[in-house]
Amino acid sequence: MRVVKSVAAMQRLAKRWQRTGVRVGFVPTMGYLHAGHLSLVQRARRLVGKSGKVAVSIYVNPTQFGPKEDFSRYPRDFTRDAKLCRDAGVDVIFAPSNEDMYARNKEGQFSTYVTEEQLSRGMEGASRPTHFRGVTTVVAKLFNIVQPSVAVFGAKDYQQAAVVKRMVRDLNFPIKIEVAPIFRETDGLAMSSRNKYLAGDLRRQAVVLSRAIERVQAAVRENSRPLQSARLRADLKKFIEREPAARLDYVEFFDPQTLAPVTKVSRGVHIALAVFIGKTRLIDNRRL
Amino acid sequence: MRVVKSVAAMQRLAKRWQRTGVRVGFVPTMGYLHAGHLSLVQRARRLVGKSGKVAVSIYVNPTQFGPKEDFSRYPRDFTRDAKLCRDAGVDVIFAPSNEDMYARNKEGQFSTYVTEEQLSRGMEGASRPTHFRGVTTVVAKLFNIVQPSVAVFGAKDYQQAAVVKRMVRDLNFPIKIEVAPIFRETDGLAMSSRNKYLAGDLRRQAVVLSRAIERVQAAVRENSRPLQSARLRADLKKFIEREPAARLDYVEFFDPQTLAPVTKVSRGVHIALAVFIGKTRLIDNRRL
Repeated sequence: MRVVKSVAAMQRLAKRWQRTGVRVGFVPTMGYLHAGHLSLVQRARRLVGKSGKVAVSIYVNPTQFGPKEDFSRYPRDFTRDAKLCRDAGVDVIFAPSNEDMYARNKEGQFSTYVTEEQLSRGMEGASRPTHFRGVTTVVAKLFNIVQPSVAVFGAKDYQQAAVVKRMVRDLNFPIKIEVAPIFRETDGLAMSSRNKYLAGDLRRQAVVLSRAIERVQAAVRENSRPLQSARLRADLKKFIEREPAARLDYVEFFDPQTLAPVTKVSRGVHIALAVFIGKTRLIDNRRL
Repeated sequence: MRVVKSVAAMQRLAKRWQRTGVRVGFVPTMGYLHAGHLSLVQRARRLVGKSGKVAVSIYVNPTQFGPKEDFSRYPRDFTRDAKLCRDAGVDVIFAPSNEDMYARNKEGQFSTYVTEEQLSRGMEGASRPTHFRGVTTVVAKLFNIVQPSVAVFGAKDYQQAAVVKRMVRDLNFPIKIEVAPIFRETDGLAMSSRNKYLAGDLRRQAVVLSRAIERVQAAVRENSRPLQSARLRADLKKFIEREPAARLDYVEFFDPQTLAPVTKVSRGVHIALAVFIGKTRLIDNRRL
Protein backbone atom coordinates (compact mmCIF):
# COMPACT_ATOMS: atom_id res chain seq x y z
CA MET A 1 0.00 0.00 0.00
CA ARG A 2 1.18 3.45 -0.90
CA VAL A 3 0.58 6.67 1.04
CA VAL A 4 0.43 9.76 -1.18
CA LYS A 5 0.55 13.12 0.57
CA SER A 6 0.76 15.65 -2.25
CA VAL A 7 -1.90 16.61 -4.78
CA ALA A 8 0.64 16.65 -7.62
CA ALA A 9 1.91 13.13 -6.82
CA MET A 10 -1.66 11.79 -6.63
CA GLN A 11 -2.52 13.35 -9.98
CA ARG A 12 0.58 11.83 -11.57
CA LEU A 13 -0.40 8.41 -10.23
CA ALA A 14 -4.00 8.87 -11.42
CA LYS A 15 -2.75 9.78 -14.89
CA ARG A 16 -0.67 6.61 -15.02
CA TRP A 17 -3.69 4.57 -13.98
CA GLN A 18 -5.78 6.25 -16.69
CA ARG A 19 -3.21 5.37 -19.33
CA THR A 20 -3.11 1.72 -18.37
CA GLY A 21 -6.91 1.59 -18.42
CA VAL A 22 -7.10 0.32 -14.84
CA ARG A 23 -10.41 0.78 -13.02
CA VAL A 24 -10.15 2.96 -9.91
CA GLY A 25 -12.55 2.76 -6.98
CA PHE A 26 -12.47 5.69 -4.58
CA VAL A 27 -13.66 6.05 -0.98
CA PRO A 28 -13.41 9.62 0.32
CA THR A 29 -13.26 9.75 4.13
CA MET A 30 -12.32 12.06 6.99
CA GLY A 31 -10.36 9.23 8.58
CA TYR A 32 -10.77 7.71 12.06
CA LEU A 33 -12.05 4.71 10.19
CA HIS A 34 -14.63 2.26 11.48
CA ALA A 35 -16.32 -0.85 10.10
CA GLY A 36 -18.69 1.32 8.07
CA HIS A 37 -15.79 2.84 6.15
CA LEU A 38 -14.28 -0.60 5.65
CA SER A 39 -17.53 -1.83 4.15
CA LEU A 40 -17.22 1.01 1.59
CA VAL A 41 -13.67 -0.15 0.82
CA GLN A 42 -14.92 -3.72 0.29
CA ARG A 43 -17.66 -2.43 -2.01
CA ALA A 44 -15.09 -0.43 -4.00
CA ARG A 45 -12.92 -3.55 -4.33
CA ARG A 46 -15.85 -5.63 -5.59
CA LEU A 47 -16.65 -2.89 -8.14
CA VAL A 48 -13.14 -2.60 -9.62
CA GLY A 49 -12.05 -6.21 -9.22
CA LYS A 50 -8.68 -7.65 -8.26
CA SER A 51 -6.90 -5.90 -11.12
CA GLY A 52 -8.39 -2.52 -10.22
CA LYS A 53 -7.07 0.00 -7.73
CA VAL A 54 -8.80 1.09 -4.53
CA ALA A 55 -7.93 4.58 -3.25
CA VAL A 56 -9.05 5.98 0.10
CA SER A 57 -8.67 9.65 0.91
CA ILE A 58 -8.18 10.63 4.53
CA TYR A 59 -8.77 14.34 4.87
CA VAL A 60 -10.64 16.32 7.51
CA ASN A 61 -11.91 19.02 5.16
CA PRO A 62 -12.09 22.40 6.94
CA THR A 63 -14.54 23.99 4.47
CA GLN A 64 -17.39 21.64 5.41
CA PHE A 65 -17.27 22.58 9.09
CA GLY A 66 -19.05 25.65 10.45
CA PRO A 67 -17.08 28.11 12.61
CA LYS A 68 -18.57 26.68 15.82
CA GLU A 69 -18.32 23.03 14.82
CA ASP A 70 -15.84 20.35 15.76
CA PHE A 71 -13.18 20.74 13.03
CA SER A 72 -10.22 21.09 15.36
CA ARG A 73 -11.23 18.31 17.74
CA TYR A 74 -12.54 15.90 15.07
CA PRO A 75 -10.82 12.57 15.91
CA ARG A 76 -7.67 11.74 13.94
CA ASP A 77 -5.40 8.66 14.08
CA PHE A 78 -3.49 8.21 10.88
CA THR A 79 -1.37 5.28 12.08
CA ARG A 80 -4.44 3.27 12.99
CA ASP A 81 -6.24 4.28 9.76
CA ALA A 82 -3.25 3.23 7.65
CA LYS A 83 -3.16 -0.20 9.31
CA LEU A 84 -6.89 -0.69 8.79
CA CYS A 85 -6.54 0.29 5.12
CA ARG A 86 -3.60 -2.04 4.56
CA ASP A 87 -5.49 -4.94 6.16
CA ALA A 88 -8.52 -4.11 3.99
CA GLY A 89 -6.47 -4.32 0.79
CA VAL A 90 -6.43 -0.61 -0.05
CA ASP A 91 -3.87 0.25 -2.76
CA VAL A 92 -3.40 3.94 -2.05
CA ILE A 93 -4.18 6.32 0.78
CA PHE A 94 -4.36 9.94 -0.32
CA ALA A 95 -3.80 12.17 2.72
CA PRO A 96 -3.18 15.76 1.64
CA SER A 97 -2.47 18.81 3.79
CA ASN A 98 -4.75 21.84 4.06
CA GLU A 99 -2.00 23.98 2.53
CA ASP A 100 -1.93 21.77 -0.55
CA MET A 101 -5.72 21.48 -0.87
CA TYR A 102 -6.54 25.15 -0.36
CA ALA A 103 -3.39 26.69 -1.77
CA ARG A 104 -2.83 30.36 -2.11
CA ASN A 105 -0.11 31.60 -4.44
CA LYS A 106 1.02 34.98 -5.78
CA GLU A 107 -2.18 35.18 -7.82
CA GLY A 108 -4.35 35.06 -4.72
CA GLN A 109 -6.14 32.78 -2.32
CA PHE A 110 -8.57 29.94 -2.94
CA SER A 111 -11.78 31.38 -4.43
CA THR A 112 -13.71 28.72 -6.38
CA TYR A 113 -16.63 26.76 -4.97
CA VAL A 114 -19.09 24.17 -6.20
CA THR A 115 -22.62 24.62 -4.89
CA GLU A 116 -25.71 22.47 -5.23
CA GLU A 117 -28.73 24.66 -4.76
CA GLN A 118 -31.71 22.35 -4.46
CA LEU A 119 -31.13 19.08 -2.59
CA SER A 120 -28.73 20.78 -0.18
CA ARG A 121 -31.21 23.29 1.21
CA GLY A 122 -33.11 21.32 3.84
CA MET A 123 -32.07 19.13 6.75
CA GLU A 124 -28.24 19.16 7.13
CA GLY A 125 -28.08 22.18 4.80
CA ALA A 126 -30.56 24.11 6.95
CA SER A 127 -28.78 23.18 10.20
CA ARG A 128 -25.26 23.64 8.79
CA PRO A 129 -25.47 26.47 6.22
CA THR A 130 -22.04 26.20 4.54
CA HIS A 131 -21.64 22.44 5.03
CA PHE A 132 -22.66 21.17 1.60
CA ARG A 133 -20.74 23.86 -0.24
CA GLY A 134 -17.66 22.52 1.52
CA VAL A 135 -18.61 18.94 0.68
CA THR A 136 -19.30 19.50 -3.03
CA THR A 137 -16.17 21.62 -3.39
CA VAL A 138 -13.83 19.11 -1.77
CA VAL A 139 -15.44 16.14 -3.50
CA ALA A 140 -15.07 17.88 -6.90
CA LYS A 141 -11.41 18.50 -6.04
CA LEU A 142 -10.85 14.91 -4.91
CA PHE A 143 -12.53 13.58 -8.06
CA ASN A 144 -10.21 15.71 -10.22
CA ILE A 145 -7.18 14.57 -8.24
CA VAL A 146 -7.93 10.83 -7.97
CA GLN A 147 -9.93 10.51 -11.22
CA PRO A 148 -11.77 7.36 -10.18
CA SER A 149 -14.18 5.40 -12.36
CA VAL A 150 -16.41 4.77 -9.34
CA ALA A 151 -16.73 6.39 -5.91
CA VAL A 152 -18.46 4.87 -2.89
CA PHE A 153 -20.35 6.90 -0.29
CA GLY A 154 -22.11 5.73 2.85
CA ALA A 155 -25.88 5.87 3.24
CA LYS A 156 -25.58 7.30 6.74
CA ASP A 157 -25.01 10.67 5.07
CA TYR A 158 -28.04 10.13 2.84
CA GLN A 159 -28.49 13.76 1.85
CA GLN A 160 -24.76 14.10 1.15
CA ALA A 161 -24.89 11.11 -1.20
CA ALA A 162 -27.88 12.65 -3.00
CA VAL A 163 -26.11 16.01 -3.33
CA VAL A 164 -22.94 14.35 -4.65
CA LYS A 165 -24.93 12.30 -7.17
CA ARG A 166 -26.65 15.48 -8.35
CA MET A 167 -23.29 17.26 -8.69
CA VAL A 168 -21.91 14.37 -10.71
CA ARG A 169 -24.94 14.42 -13.01
CA ASP A 170 -24.98 18.22 -13.42
CA LEU A 171 -21.23 18.74 -13.91
CA ASN A 172 -20.83 15.55 -16.00
CA PHE A 173 -18.11 13.96 -13.90
CA PRO A 174 -17.33 10.65 -15.69
CA ILE A 175 -17.72 8.80 -12.40
CA LYS A 176 -20.29 6.31 -11.11
CA ILE A 177 -21.52 6.96 -7.57
CA GLU A 178 -22.39 3.98 -5.39
CA VAL A 179 -24.14 4.30 -2.05
CA ALA A 180 -23.48 1.53 0.49
CA PRO A 181 -25.83 0.72 3.39
CA ILE A 182 -25.45 2.06 6.92
CA PHE A 183 -23.26 -0.05 9.19
CA ARG A 184 -24.61 -0.31 12.74
CA GLU A 185 -23.34 -1.33 16.15
CA THR A 186 -25.15 -4.39 17.60
CA ASP A 187 -27.54 -2.14 19.56
CA GLY A 188 -28.51 -0.24 16.40
CA LEU A 189 -26.36 2.91 16.68
CA ALA A 190 -25.18 3.95 13.22
CA MET A 191 -21.38 3.82 13.04
CA SER A 192 -19.73 7.24 13.02
CA SER A 193 -16.29 8.60 13.87
CA ARG A 194 -18.12 11.04 16.13
CA ASN A 195 -19.38 8.17 18.33
CA LYS A 196 -15.96 8.46 19.97
CA TYR A 197 -17.25 11.63 21.66
CA LEU A 198 -19.95 9.64 23.53
CA ALA A 199 -18.52 9.20 27.02
CA GLY A 200 -20.21 7.24 29.80
CA ASP A 201 -24.00 7.10 29.67
CA LEU A 202 -24.16 9.21 26.47
CA ARG A 203 -23.27 6.12 24.44
CA ARG A 204 -26.37 4.36 25.78
CA GLN A 205 -28.60 7.40 25.17
CA ALA A 206 -27.37 7.65 21.54
CA VAL A 207 -29.32 4.50 20.69
CA VAL A 208 -32.43 6.69 20.76
CA LEU A 209 -31.88 7.72 17.11
CA SER A 210 -32.25 4.22 15.70
CA ARG A 211 -34.98 3.43 18.25
CA ALA A 212 -36.91 6.48 17.05
CA ILE A 213 -36.66 5.31 13.46
CA GLU A 214 -37.83 1.82 14.44
CA ARG A 215 -40.77 3.41 16.29
CA VAL A 216 -41.91 5.24 13.14
CA GLN A 217 -41.30 2.18 10.99
CA ALA A 218 -43.52 0.09 13.28
CA ALA A 219 -46.24 2.77 13.22
CA VAL A 220 -46.14 2.99 9.42
CA ARG A 221 -46.37 -0.77 9.05
CA GLU A 222 -49.22 -1.11 11.51
CA ASN A 223 -51.31 1.49 9.69
CA SER A 224 -52.72 0.96 6.22
CA ARG A 225 -53.40 4.70 5.90
CA PRO A 226 -50.60 7.34 5.72
CA LEU A 227 -49.60 9.07 8.95
CA GLN A 228 -49.30 12.84 9.37
CA SER A 229 -45.68 13.99 9.49
CA ALA A 230 -46.48 16.76 11.99
CA ARG A 231 -47.93 14.25 14.49
CA LEU A 232 -45.05 11.84 13.99
CA ARG A 233 -42.58 14.67 14.49
CA ALA A 234 -44.19 15.77 17.76
CA ASP A 235 -44.30 12.19 19.02
CA LEU A 236 -40.66 11.59 18.08
CA LYS A 237 -39.49 14.77 19.77
CA LYS A 238 -41.09 13.66 23.02
CA PHE A 239 -39.76 10.11 22.61
CA ILE A 240 -36.20 11.28 21.91
CA GLU A 241 -36.04 13.98 24.55
CA ARG A 242 -37.05 11.53 27.25
CA GLU A 243 -33.33 10.74 27.22
CA PRO A 244 -31.84 13.40 29.51
CA ALA A 245 -28.94 14.45 27.21
CA ALA A 246 -30.90 14.24 23.93
CA ARG A 247 -32.18 17.26 22.02
CA LEU A 248 -33.82 16.87 18.58
CA ASP A 249 -32.28 19.11 15.90
CA TYR A 250 -34.62 18.02 13.08
CA VAL A 251 -36.60 15.06 11.85
CA GLU A 252 -37.73 15.08 8.22
CA PHE A 253 -39.93 12.83 6.10
CA PHE A 254 -39.20 13.07 2.39
CA ASP A 255 -39.22 11.56 -1.08
CA PRO A 256 -36.01 9.48 -1.37
CA GLN A 257 -35.34 10.71 -4.94
CA THR A 258 -36.11 14.43 -4.80
CA LEU A 259 -35.66 14.90 -1.01
CA ALA A 260 -38.90 16.92 -1.16
CA PRO A 261 -40.64 16.87 2.27
CA VAL A 262 -43.90 14.94 2.47
CA THR A 263 -46.75 15.47 4.92
CA LYS A 264 -48.26 12.00 4.47
CA VAL A 265 -45.91 9.31 5.68
CA SER A 266 -46.23 5.76 4.38
CA ARG A 267 -44.00 2.90 3.21
CA GLY A 268 -41.24 4.05 0.84
CA VAL A 269 -41.00 7.49 2.41
CA HIS A 270 -37.55 8.26 3.79
CA ILE A 271 -36.90 9.52 7.34
CA ALA A 272 -33.78 11.41 8.42
CA LEU A 273 -33.01 12.97 11.77
CA ALA A 274 -30.30 14.82 13.64
CA VAL A 275 -30.06 14.69 17.42
CA PHE A 276 -27.67 16.28 19.88
CA ILE A 277 -26.54 13.79 22.53
CA GLY A 278 -24.87 16.19 24.91
CA LYS A 279 -22.64 18.29 22.65
CA THR A 280 -22.34 15.57 20.01
CA ARG A 281 -24.57 15.91 16.96
CA LEU A 282 -25.53 12.53 15.47
CA ILE A 283 -27.56 11.70 12.35
CA ASP A 284 -29.40 8.65 11.10
CA ASN A 285 -31.90 7.80 8.34
CA ARG A 286 -33.84 4.94 6.79
CA ARG A 287 -36.40 4.13 4.15
CA LEU A 288 -39.67 3.37 5.96
CA MET B 1 -13.64 15.19 -38.84
CA ARG B 2 -16.32 13.90 -36.54
CA VAL B 3 -19.33 15.83 -35.20
CA VAL B 4 -20.50 14.62 -31.79
CA LYS B 5 -23.85 15.90 -30.57
CA SER B 6 -24.48 14.01 -27.36
CA VAL B 7 -22.72 14.31 -24.03
CA ALA B 8 -22.66 10.54 -23.57
CA ALA B 9 -21.04 9.94 -26.98
CA MET B 10 -18.42 12.61 -26.34
CA GLN B 11 -17.58 11.09 -22.95
CA ARG B 12 -17.21 7.64 -24.52
CA LEU B 13 -14.84 9.09 -27.12
CA ALA B 14 -12.88 10.97 -24.44
CA LYS B 15 -12.53 7.76 -22.45
CA ARG B 16 -11.16 5.95 -25.49
CA TRP B 17 -8.66 8.77 -26.04
CA GLN B 18 -7.60 8.59 -22.38
CA ARG B 19 -6.98 4.87 -22.65
CA THR B 20 -4.78 5.23 -25.71
CA GLY B 21 -2.81 8.00 -23.98
CA VAL B 22 -3.45 10.47 -26.81
CA ARG B 23 -3.05 14.17 -25.98
CA VAL B 24 -6.24 16.18 -26.41
CA GLY B 25 -6.31 19.92 -27.10
CA PHE B 26 -9.64 21.64 -26.52
CA VAL B 27 -11.02 24.95 -27.78
CA PRO B 28 -14.39 25.84 -26.24
CA THR B 29 -16.35 28.30 -28.43
CA MET B 30 -19.85 29.65 -28.93
CA GLY B 31 -19.45 29.12 -32.69
CA TYR B 32 -19.79 31.67 -35.48
CA LEU B 33 -16.07 31.18 -35.84
CA HIS B 34 -13.61 33.81 -37.02
CA ALA B 35 -9.85 33.96 -37.54
CA GLY B 36 -9.35 34.49 -33.80
CA HIS B 37 -10.98 31.13 -33.03
CA LEU B 38 -8.94 29.48 -35.77
CA SER B 39 -5.74 30.81 -34.20
CA LEU B 40 -6.79 29.02 -30.99
CA VAL B 41 -7.29 25.81 -32.98
CA GLN B 42 -3.79 26.17 -34.47
CA ARG B 43 -2.35 26.72 -31.02
CA ALA B 44 -4.14 23.61 -29.75
CA ARG B 45 -2.72 21.62 -32.66
CA ARG B 46 0.81 22.80 -31.97
CA LEU B 47 0.37 21.84 -28.31
CA VAL B 48 -0.82 18.26 -28.92
CA GLY B 49 1.13 17.54 -32.11
CA LYS B 50 0.10 15.61 -35.19
CA SER B 51 -0.70 12.48 -33.22
CA GLY B 52 -2.89 14.38 -30.75
CA LYS B 53 -6.58 15.21 -31.09
CA VAL B 54 -8.05 18.70 -31.38
CA ALA B 55 -11.64 19.11 -30.15
CA VAL B 56 -13.72 22.28 -30.61
CA SER B 57 -16.99 22.74 -28.78
CA ILE B 58 -19.64 24.87 -30.43
CA TYR B 59 -22.25 25.75 -27.86
CA VAL B 60 -24.05 29.01 -27.14
CA ASN B 61 -24.33 28.52 -23.41
CA PRO B 62 -27.56 30.03 -22.06
CA THR B 63 -26.41 30.29 -18.43
CA GLN B 64 -23.72 32.88 -19.21
CA PHE B 65 -26.22 35.34 -20.73
CA GLY B 66 -28.26 37.73 -18.62
CA PRO B 67 -32.04 37.86 -19.11
CA LYS B 68 -31.78 41.05 -21.20
CA GLU B 69 -28.74 39.98 -23.21
CA ASP B 70 -28.40 38.62 -26.74
CA PHE B 71 -28.67 34.86 -26.15
CA SER B 72 -31.47 34.27 -28.65
CA ARG B 73 -30.03 36.45 -31.40
CA TYR B 74 -26.38 35.47 -30.88
CA PRO B 75 -25.15 34.57 -34.41
CA ARG B 76 -25.13 30.88 -35.31
CA ASP B 77 -24.04 29.13 -38.53
CA PHE B 78 -23.11 25.52 -37.90
CA THR B 79 -22.55 24.60 -41.55
CA ARG B 80 -20.00 27.37 -41.98
CA ASP B 81 -18.37 26.58 -38.60
CA ALA B 82 -18.05 22.90 -39.51
CA LYS B 83 -16.36 23.75 -42.82
CA LEU B 84 -13.93 26.13 -41.08
CA CYS B 85 -13.10 23.46 -38.48
CA ARG B 86 -12.54 20.78 -41.13
CA ASP B 87 -10.24 23.09 -43.10
CA ALA B 88 -8.35 23.93 -39.88
CA GLY B 89 -7.68 20.25 -39.16
CA VAL B 90 -10.05 19.87 -36.19
CA ASP B 91 -10.64 16.21 -35.26
CA VAL B 92 -13.93 16.54 -33.39
CA ILE B 93 -16.65 19.15 -33.05
CA PHE B 94 -18.70 18.75 -29.90
CA ALA B 95 -22.04 20.50 -30.40
CA PRO B 96 -24.50 19.53 -27.67
CA SER B 97 -28.11 20.61 -27.16
CA ASN B 98 -29.36 22.66 -24.21
CA GLU B 99 -31.55 19.72 -23.21
CA ASP B 100 -28.50 17.48 -22.98
CA MET B 101 -26.31 20.05 -21.20
CA TYR B 102 -28.87 21.20 -18.64
CA ALA B 103 -30.87 18.01 -18.28
CA ARG B 104 -33.68 17.58 -15.87
CA ASN B 105 -34.84 14.10 -15.00
CA LYS B 106 -37.22 12.54 -12.50
CA GLU B 107 -34.87 13.55 -9.70
CA GLY B 108 -35.17 17.23 -10.52
CA GLN B 109 -33.75 20.03 -12.59
CA PHE B 110 -30.18 21.23 -13.00
CA SER B 111 -29.00 22.67 -9.67
CA THR B 112 -25.18 22.64 -9.43
CA TYR B 113 -22.99 25.64 -10.18
CA VAL B 114 -19.31 26.48 -10.06
CA THR B 115 -18.54 29.99 -8.86
CA GLU B 116 -15.30 31.91 -8.66
CA GLU B 117 -15.69 34.60 -6.04
CA GLN B 118 -12.69 36.86 -6.36
CA LEU B 119 -11.43 37.51 -9.91
CA SER B 120 -14.96 37.44 -11.28
CA ARG B 121 -16.28 40.37 -9.20
CA GLY B 122 -15.16 43.42 -11.16
CA MET B 123 -15.41 44.49 -14.79
CA GLU B 124 -17.46 41.91 -16.76
CA GLY B 125 -18.67 40.41 -13.49
CA ALA B 126 -19.92 43.78 -12.24
CA SER B 127 -21.63 44.61 -15.56
CA ARG B 128 -22.98 41.08 -16.10
CA PRO B 129 -23.77 39.68 -12.61
CA THR B 130 -24.45 36.00 -13.47
CA HIS B 131 -22.09 35.82 -16.45
CA PHE B 132 -19.04 34.19 -14.87
CA ARG B 133 -21.09 31.69 -12.89
CA GLY B 134 -22.41 30.53 -16.26
CA VAL B 135 -18.92 30.45 -17.74
CA THR B 136 -17.25 28.50 -14.92
CA THR B 137 -20.16 26.07 -14.74
CA VAL B 138 -20.21 25.29 -18.47
CA VAL B 139 -16.41 25.14 -18.72
CA ALA B 140 -16.28 22.69 -15.78
CA LYS B 141 -18.92 20.58 -17.57
CA LEU B 142 -17.06 20.74 -20.90
CA PHE B 143 -13.80 19.79 -19.19
CA ASN B 144 -15.47 16.75 -17.62
CA ILE B 145 -17.03 15.77 -20.94
CA VAL B 146 -14.03 16.29 -23.27
CA GLN B 147 -11.31 15.56 -20.67
CA PRO B 148 -8.57 17.44 -22.52
CA SER B 149 -4.94 17.64 -21.48
CA VAL B 150 -4.80 21.29 -22.57
CA ALA B 151 -7.47 23.92 -23.30
CA VAL B 152 -6.92 27.15 -25.23
CA PHE B 153 -8.74 30.40 -24.46
CA GLY B 154 -8.50 33.75 -26.24
CA ALA B 155 -6.96 36.81 -24.59
CA LYS B 156 -9.82 39.02 -25.78
CA ASP B 157 -11.78 37.66 -22.82
CA TYR B 158 -8.88 38.37 -20.49
CA GLN B 159 -10.87 38.24 -17.26
CA GLN B 160 -12.59 35.03 -18.37
CA ALA B 161 -9.22 33.38 -18.99
CA ALA B 162 -8.05 34.48 -15.52
CA VAL B 163 -11.24 33.14 -13.90
CA VAL B 164 -10.93 29.81 -15.74
CA LYS B 165 -7.27 29.47 -14.75
CA ARG B 166 -8.23 30.12 -11.13
CA MET B 167 -11.01 27.52 -11.31
CA VAL B 168 -8.59 24.97 -12.74
CA ARG B 169 -6.08 25.69 -9.97
CA ASP B 170 -8.66 25.65 -7.16
CA LEU B 171 -10.64 22.58 -8.29
CA ASN B 172 -7.50 20.69 -9.43
CA PHE B 173 -8.63 20.00 -12.99
CA PRO B 174 -5.73 18.04 -14.53
CA ILE B 175 -5.71 20.43 -17.49
CA LYS B 176 -3.24 23.04 -18.69
CA ILE B 177 -4.78 26.37 -19.71
CA GLU B 178 -3.19 28.32 -22.57
CA VAL B 179 -4.16 31.87 -23.44
CA ALA B 180 -3.62 32.94 -27.06
CA PRO B 181 -3.25 36.58 -28.16
CA ILE B 182 -6.09 38.73 -29.46
CA PHE B 183 -6.66 38.53 -33.22
CA ARG B 184 -7.48 41.90 -34.79
CA GLU B 185 -8.95 43.20 -38.03
CA THR B 186 -6.50 45.31 -40.06
CA ASP B 187 -7.92 48.52 -38.55
CA GLY B 188 -7.37 47.22 -35.01
CA LEU B 189 -10.86 46.02 -34.06
CA ALA B 190 -10.57 42.87 -31.93
CA MET B 191 -12.24 39.95 -33.70
CA SER B 192 -15.55 38.90 -32.17
CA SER B 193 -18.60 37.02 -33.35
CA ARG B 194 -20.59 40.02 -32.14
CA ASN B 195 -18.90 42.26 -34.74
CA LYS B 196 -21.53 40.87 -37.09
CA TYR B 197 -24.05 43.13 -35.33
CA LEU B 198 -22.16 46.26 -36.46
CA ALA B 199 -24.17 47.51 -39.44
CA GLY B 200 -23.20 50.54 -41.55
CA ASP B 201 -21.20 53.23 -39.78
CA LEU B 202 -21.18 51.32 -36.46
CA ARG B 203 -18.38 49.11 -37.79
CA ARG B 204 -16.20 52.21 -38.29
CA GLN B 205 -17.09 53.61 -34.86
CA ALA B 206 -16.16 50.28 -33.21
CA VAL B 207 -12.49 50.97 -33.91
CA VAL B 208 -12.64 53.45 -31.03
CA LEU B 209 -11.95 50.63 -28.49
CA SER B 210 -8.52 49.77 -29.87
CA ARG B 211 -7.82 53.46 -30.57
CA ALA B 212 -8.58 54.25 -26.94
CA ILE B 213 -6.15 51.58 -25.78
CA GLU B 214 -3.47 52.91 -28.14
CA ARG B 215 -4.09 56.40 -26.75
CA VAL B 216 -3.39 55.24 -23.19
CA GLN B 217 -0.43 53.17 -24.32
CA ALA B 218 1.13 56.22 -25.99
CA ALA B 219 0.50 58.34 -22.89
CA VAL B 220 2.06 55.72 -20.60
CA ARG B 221 5.13 55.40 -22.82
CA GLU B 222 5.62 59.15 -23.11
CA ASN B 223 5.58 59.64 -19.35
CA SER B 224 8.24 58.28 -17.09
CA ARG B 225 5.97 58.79 -14.05
CA PRO B 226 2.77 56.80 -13.46
CA LEU B 227 -0.51 58.33 -14.63
CA GLN B 228 -3.63 58.62 -12.46
CA SER B 229 -6.29 56.08 -13.45
CA ALA B 230 -9.13 58.53 -12.66
CA ARG B 231 -7.73 61.11 -15.07
CA LEU B 232 -7.13 58.50 -17.78
CA ARG B 233 -10.64 57.19 -17.30
CA ALA B 234 -12.22 60.63 -17.68
CA ASP B 235 -10.11 61.36 -20.76
CA LEU B 236 -11.00 58.01 -22.34
CA LYS B 237 -14.70 58.45 -21.69
CA LYS B 238 -14.63 61.75 -23.57
CA PHE B 239 -12.48 60.30 -26.33
CA ILE B 240 -14.72 57.26 -26.81
CA GLU B 241 -18.04 59.07 -26.59
CA ARG B 242 -17.02 61.49 -29.32
CA GLU B 243 -18.24 58.67 -31.57
CA PRO B 244 -21.98 59.27 -31.78
CA ALA B 245 -23.08 55.65 -31.13
CA ALA B 246 -20.44 54.87 -28.48
CA ARG B 247 -21.14 54.70 -24.73
CA LEU B 248 -18.46 53.60 -22.28
CA ASP B 249 -19.57 50.79 -19.95
CA TYR B 250 -16.32 50.56 -17.96
CA VAL B 251 -12.61 51.01 -18.31
CA GLU B 252 -10.36 49.42 -15.70
CA PHE B 253 -6.62 49.49 -14.98
CA PHE B 254 -5.42 46.48 -13.03
CA ASP B 255 -2.66 44.08 -12.06
CA PRO B 256 -2.55 41.40 -14.79
CA GLN B 257 -2.11 38.58 -12.24
CA THR B 258 -4.53 39.45 -9.46
CA LEU B 259 -6.89 41.69 -11.51
CA ALA B 260 -6.73 44.10 -8.55
CA PRO B 261 -7.48 47.69 -9.73
CA VAL B 262 -4.55 50.12 -9.61
CA THR B 263 -4.71 53.90 -9.33
CA LYS B 264 -1.21 54.52 -10.70
CA VAL B 265 -0.94 53.43 -14.31
CA SER B 266 2.45 52.60 -15.81
CA ARG B 267 4.02 49.99 -18.10
CA GLY B 268 2.96 46.45 -17.29
CA VAL B 269 -0.44 47.50 -15.97
CA HIS B 270 -3.34 45.93 -17.85
CA ILE B 271 -6.24 47.91 -19.33
CA ALA B 272 -9.66 46.44 -20.15
CA LEU B 273 -12.76 48.21 -21.36
CA ALA B 274 -16.33 47.55 -22.46
CA VAL B 275 -18.12 49.92 -24.81
CA PHE B 276 -21.60 49.88 -26.26
CA ILE B 277 -21.55 50.69 -29.99
CA GLY B 278 -25.25 51.20 -30.55
CA LYS B 279 -26.81 48.15 -28.90
CA THR B 280 -23.71 46.01 -29.34
CA ARG B 281 -21.45 45.62 -26.33
CA LEU B 282 -17.80 45.14 -27.27
CA ILE B 283 -14.74 44.48 -25.10
CA ASP B 284 -11.01 44.84 -25.57
CA ASN B 285 -7.88 44.79 -23.39
CA ARG B 286 -4.10 45.01 -23.52
CA ARG B 287 -1.01 45.07 -21.34
CA LEU B 288 0.29 48.66 -21.37
